[in-house]
Amino acid sequence: MALRFALVIEPAASDDPRPSFADSFRVIDPSAPALSVGELSTQRGDGIFESIGVVDGHVQETQAHLERLAHSARICDLPGPNLEQWRQAIGVAARHAPATGEGVIKLILSRGVEHGPAPTAWVTVAPAPDNSAAREHGIRVVTLDRGYGIDTPARAPWLLLGAKTLSYAVNMAAIREAKRRGADDAIFVTSDGFVLEAPTASLILRIGGRFVTPAPHGGILHGTTQLSLFAHLEEQGHETGYEVVPTGALREADAAWLVSSVRLAAPITAIDGVEMPVDAELTASFNRYLLSARD
Amino acid sequence: MALRFALVIEPAASDDPRPSFADSFRVIDPSAPALSVGELSTQRGDGIFESIGVVDGHVQETQAHLERLAHSARICDLPGPNLEQWRQAIGVAARHAPATGEGVIKLILSRGVEHGPAPTAWVTVAPAPDNSAAREHGIRVVTLDRGYGIDTPARAPWLLLGAKTLSYAVNMAAIREAKRRGADDAIFVTSDGFVLEAPTASLILRIGGRFVTPAPHGGILHGTTQLSLFAHLEEQGHETGYEVVPTGALREADAAWLVSSVRLAAPITAIDGVEMPVDAELTASFNRYLLSARD
Repeated sequence: MALRFALVIEPAASDDPRPSFADSFRVIDPSAPALSVGELSTQRGDGIFESIGVVDGHVQETQAHLERLAHSARICDLPGPNLEQWRQAIGVAARHAPATGEGVIKLILSRGVEHGPAPTAWVTVAPAPDNSAAREHGIRVVTLDRGYGIDTPARAPWLLLGAKTLSYAVNMAAIREAKRRGADDAIFVTSDGFVLEAPTASLILRIGGRFVTPAPHGGILHGTTQLSLFAHLEEQGHETGYEVVPTGALREADAAWLVSSVRLAAPITAIDGVEMPVDAELTASFNRYLLSARD
Repeated sequence: MALRFALVIEPAASDDPRPSFADSFRVIDPSAPALSVGELSTQRGDGIFESIGVVDGHVQETQAHLERLAHSARICDLPGPNLEQWRQAIGVAARHAPATGEGVIKLILSRGVEHGPAPTAWVTVAPAPDNSAAREHGIRVVTLDRGYGIDTPARAPWLLLGAKTLSYAVNMAAIREAKRRGADDAIFVTSDGFVLEAPTASLILRIGGRFVTPAPHGGILHGTTQLSLFAHLEEQGHETGYEVVPTGALREADAAWLVSSVRLAAPITAIDGVEMPVDAELTASFNRYLLSARD
């Protein structure tokens, strides 16, 4: 969907305590030229981002997204974001999100212009695409090798595997490959046979009545939607767990979902061509919860 | 170095045969806003690039760079670039490169604005940084695990390992890690112990009088400078070869270089802290050749 609002931020130091950062924001036309060709985000995908859901004007899970932005910055040796400044920018952006229905606010922190003095940062707002078909009828997925072993991320932090970087070309290529195979989305697996995540979503499996997600270990982005849904499931008395999930365990699951900030809970109807049962009622309850105002 | 010229291209179909593409070029101020925040290059590092050396106004190895751009486009499912259009754009850009001394022309092909109709493309020109210290005194390197096995690229083309994509955050992080370890640059190795390439350069080893580079196999960018230097070495009667190089072979080399389009041949003075002899005379002859006009 076309962007409907954008705001450039002049990033403040992470420990700058000023009460209002309004003078560090500059509203721009989201379809007009705003970035120079020297931007490292565009030259090298050198930066980080977050996509945040907005429902009926309420920004979902702001704090969890801000914390993950700071986490990604640490992994990428970017200056720590001033979270209060970003929170205020999100507040301004939220006023331009759809007042009813769903939207998406994106935060972007780039390393800045090459040889320039400081990072570049901006926030965009767009209406969310209509995800009702994926939520109601589900998605077919294929497993794709992410190329590395389960122990690689801890051993090789320069691969930035736990950061949400702008270097997202592989994630997009994986989704194109899934579509070539007649599916809608992919699940990345390690080359030594463990389940990771989807290119733009987390995976939740129901196995023997428990809800399980692959344990974040540096190579998996800790999903804000997965975290929120697990808290909800625990409140409802369900058992949840972070586990090392062998690829074979996908066949043991009696239900599975890809969950993310904007598409929310999409039930998986087939993995690698093998049909999978869908719990329509539970999925609907997940999405009702995810569409309620969450902080 | 600051950009001194930039040109936006309206990409033509790859089979458009028109004699002049001048009306598809638009000169822009390289430091002024030119790209919208909806650009997929900046949102997802979703595009490809080439960096071409310019010496005393002569653009080096244009054809090899154009062919590699087309190769990267195929891997990334981007529309094939019209090479004649790009060649003409390079011709315009070259007039703005330093007339004496060294410059760099960068070609960028992005997937375009999200949900937009077409790719975005542009060309920039900058003076080259002074690389004389690296060429004359050499560079210290460390080996870093690239995270995947030697057979991964052929098995998982969605990892885009043979394409020169804008998703370059890992390459930059590897160079930062090398500097943290007191070195200047890195050599990527596979997790199963084979030598690949540097984050922004190819590796050439001299082993027993032969010049060897790791065999491109999908996971290594075929270096235009390495190709050119091998052709030169063969003309001089030297033996060259593409080989699968185990990490241990780095210790057998009696000389080694990282070669790339702008820094040219930088002799390696140490690998992982182990000093390495430098053949100063041969290195100087490499750089004299690489600084001569090459097509």
